[in-house]
Amino acid sequence: MADRVFEELAEDECLTLIAPGGIGRIAYVGRFGPVVLPVNYKLSDGAIVFRTAEHGPLDEDLRTGITGADYKVAFEIDEIDPVARRGWSVLVQGPAHHVTDDEQDAADGTRVEPWAPGDRELSVRIIPSRITGRRVGAA
Amino acid sequence: MADRVFEELAEDECLTLIAPGGIGRIAYVGRFGPVVLPVNYKLSDGAIVFRTAEHGPLDEDLRTGITGADYKVAFEIDEIDPVARRGWSVLVQGPAHHVTDDEQDAADGTRVEPWAPGDRELSVRIIPSRITGRRVGAA
Repeated sequence: MADRVFEELAEDECLTLIAPGGIGRIAYVGRFGPVVLPVNYKLSDGAIVFRTAEHGPLDEDLRTGITGADYKVAFEIDEIDPVARRGWSVLVQGPAHHVTDDEQDAADGTRVEPWAPGDRELSVRIIPSRITGRRVGAA
Repeated sequence: MADRVFEELAEDECLTLIAPGGIGRIAYVGRFGPVVLPVNYKLSDGAIVFRTAEHGPLDEDLRTGITGADYKVAFEIDEIDPVARRGWSVLVQGPAHHVTDDEQDAADGTRVEPWAPGDRELSVRIIPSRITGRRVGAA
């Protein structure tokens, strides 16, 4: 393993890596312990934004938790090459807030496209309070 | 969105999907809220097994939590095609335990190969108490 490196990433490097948006994973504490689910996200004004079905399981679980400003969630984005055995991951931690699509439109004029069917009218914004990242791979 | 489907997966289908091992994401509640990190895992006797550096950040965080049998963590595995906009994800929830590599060897004769450098002598086993999965894609 001497030819392999593990490197902590600076916050600005993390933001550059996650700026294109795509698939990330939202994590929060639900009724049965931590929950992790993949969602389609984008970065908007420095915040993670994704949509979920209003009154769907993710909404209901988050709604139980999002009652104050300090409900902490995590959002993880990574890009991993299983063949070369290298990659990076970024972890965003911070409070989550519900925003209406109209508020989101007003903020940046675009919406995140969810992949699942149904009425997905609810946007969730995560304001990063802590951004950490790591890269692992060949030296 | 009418041409897209969202489907809950049965537990046995989830186990089949995650059986090959590979990259998964461990989630637990750390000092700053939920944490999600990618790790290389395998499925061994129905449990998720991965290795981490002894006294590394993941070990220290998990060690703080793994004091009894009911420290709940989550492990997420997914396979997503961003172009076709379809994929599946499996969520394993349950208690996490430290095991020595010798114990792990005795259990199944093999070790999980970590990607990061350093002395990675600590295996973590997650015994699933709840396995759920979902598939999203074209109808």
